[in-house]
Amino acid sequence: MGSLAIGQRSLGDPRIGFPLWPPLTDGCPRTSTADVAYPVDVDYDYERAGAELYPALLPPLPAPGLGEGRTPLVELEPGVFVKDESRNPTWSHKDRLNRCTVSAAVGVGAAGVVVASSGNHGASAAAYAARAGLPCVVITGPEPQPGVVAFLRAYGAVVMAVPWEGRWPLMRRIAERAGLHPVSSTTVTHTGHPFGPEGYKTIAYEIHADLGTPEAVFVPTGYGELLYGIAKGFTELRRLGRARRVPRMIACEPAAAAPLVKALREGVPAAHVEVGATDAGSIVSPVSGYRGVLAVRSSDGRALAVTDPQLRAAQAELARAGLWTELAGAAGLAGLRALGPVEGPVVCVATSSGLKNPVRDSAPAPAVVTDWAQAARILTASGHFQL
Amino acid sequence: MGSLAIGQRSLGDPRIGFPLWPPLTDGCPRTSTADVAYPVDVDYDYERAGAELYPALLPPLPAPGLGEGRTPLVELEPGVFVKDESRNPTWSHKDRLNRCTVSAAVGVGAAGVVVASSGNHGASAAAYAARAGLPCVVITGPEPQPGVVAFLRAYGAVVMAVPWEGRWPLMRRIAERAGLHPVSSTTVTHTGHPFGPEGYKTIAYEIHADLGTPEAVFVPTGYGELLYGIAKGFTELRRLGRARRVPRMIACEPAAAAPLVKALREGVPAAHVEVGATDAGSIVSPVSGYRGVLAVRSSDGRALAVTDPQLRAAQAELARAGLWTELAGAAGLAGLRALGPVEGPVVCVATSSGLKNPVRDSAPAPAVVTDWAQAARILTASGHFQL
Repeated sequence: MGSLAIGQRSLGDPRIGFPLWPPLTDGCPRTSTADVAYPVDVDYDYERAGAELYPALLPPLPAPGLGEGRTPLVELEPGVFVKDESRNPTWSHKDRLNRCTVSAAVGVGAAGVVVASSGNHGASAAAYAARAGLPCVVITGPEPQPGVVAFLRAYGAVVMAVPWEGRWPLMRRIAERAGLHPVSSTTVTHTGHPFGPEGYKTIAYEIHADLGTPEAVFVPTGYGELLYGIAKGFTELRRLGRARRVPRMIACEPAAAAPLVKALREGVPAAHVEVGATDAGSIVSPVSGYRGVLAVRSSDGRALAVTDPQLRAAQAELARAGLWTELAGAAGLAGLRALGPVEGPVVCVATSSGLKNPVRDSAPAPAVVTDWAQAARILTASGHFQL
Repeated sequence: MGSLAIGQRSLGDPRIGFPLWPPLTDGCPRTSTADVAYPVDVDYDYERAGAELYPALLPPLPAPGLGEGRTPLVELEPGVFVKDESRNPTWSHKDRLNRCTVSAAVGVGAAGVVVASSGNHGASAAAYAARAGLPCVVITGPEPQPGVVAFLRAYGAVVMAVPWEGRWPLMRRIAERAGLHPVSSTTVTHTGHPFGPEGYKTIAYEIHADLGTPEAVFVPTGYGELLYGIAKGFTELRRLGRARRVPRMIACEPAAAAPLVKALREGVPAAHVEVGATDAGSIVSPVSGYRGVLAVRSSDGRALAVTDPQLRAAQAELARAGLWTELAGAAGLAGLRALGPVEGPVVCVATSSGLKNPVRDSAPAPAVVTDWAQAARILTASGHFQL
């Protein structure tokens, strides 16, 4: 059996349906307003779903894969599990999304893909486009890090540095004029690509297969696509009678912005905030998306704002357990620790590899050691060793 | 059923056996000479092996895991598969080894581990030691890259920069005086840790489960531990009647050194060479180890020397298929391409993530684009797009 996807459905008004093709990359054309854009969602013929969730409950996937997903669930302490998404082809969770979005590009016969990103999303899109034989344009912020540029160019992407205010219009124009399929949001209120969260559903399927249904899932949250995708996966498992409930979805945003916290507090579909200073650049955003609101509300979850010191503490805790994450990737555990003891089991999603942290040249170089006396001093000073 | 490991056996003379504990980290005490050190190997009670290879044919593993292994086999072209070892906990194949070597440290009740490495091996040892609650000392070369130091320190390792000529004596002294277990070689002719290649055997088991027995396996080769471990895994499958043959093991060394090529040509157990300039620092070595000779000879394989331009071409080819590797990690495919068309299926092992490549600050920054005319020029110049 192939994909059971049968259409797209507006999240602004679920009574409004659309055909599956073409994917509505600008969000719902019926319910979106000048102020708020609403996403559309892929709908399936659930009545026909059998024992196998893959590929039945994914969109059609004509783009070849790279062995994404099937990441391990590592037990950090009794009842606390880490879903380590750094084990994906480009070492972040974004690969699950891009397998689906690049498949949409292949499905519509696009000449290539275009993506706006200064990090994980762009590199992942570039890799899946390369694998599918499609060119990829990545629109970064005005001053991308050299490591990110090298990462993007390795996959052959055409990289353009664009001031943020010009991002959306330029992206739409490139898409139109060069016939490229956008695989990131083209709207200010985040709608993203309708196929994107479908890739993230597999995280729910995998957690359920490994652990059953946890009490809660703590998710690093920027626009809420990952949060929504995991919630949708568990919701499907409940609908199919495989799970009795959906875990509480806990969105963990950087306190420097936290638009979803604001949207939920104010009861609005999406909120705008000022962005303060943070090193969690991968998930900081001045605007949220409606998917985040839906995921938290439908699961009796909540949104938490975590500070950079809390992120650093969580990153260090994970690394001291052998799991080194990008700073933003530790937001799930940071949220759990901020909340204090909760009933388990819980899963913290760790989204990305610590190798993506910027290298600080200012960090002290290790001492050069040429004799035992020097070594002994260092060993003693570390506090770990008795000589 | 637990581990079926029953002892250690000299590779210098397989008639000579030793108990399983303690692991003989300085190689075989009976056959090694002042000129050549011989490794020891873990032996199993193969008669009792049943359907499950894990954990029967691994050493006892008291150190907790991090979800290492089970990496995907990605088809690059018909008959050519890439085993992507960048999907491991610290994003290289070394995690398979260190699960076993750190388990040895736990098994002997060591106060910690010590490792000499300027890269993947050290970071992996640091992660597994951290996971096991043991301190870790990493002895790097005299000028480790800042990115590597950050990687090691993330896991809490104590990092010492040591001139290469002082490495072995200092490492042995640290091990003795602080009660640390060495998880990398303590001998000049490479013997390594007896448990190390056991971890690599699982690559053979996984390839066999996914693909059957390929015609050949192309392996980035430094000291030959990975090469030997994969060969041993297939040899065990043949011994157990699951496979009819062992694939040809093709060692792929950087042409800047290539001691295994020399050892095989001269018919000696290990060779010393001058080391020329290369960017494949992860696998360049002035001396080989006897395991490499055994793996190539016993499988009717061969050793190839690949140049830096060949490595770069293979790295680019993999990245354009969505798999970005460390330069040294592309040596397997570089070897296959150097050899010309071969009968398939073949597997090229890709050992490590492209995120570990040093970032060149000299690389050109992307153009800053503020209007469509600039974007159009860049798109046209790329040769990919018609506007």
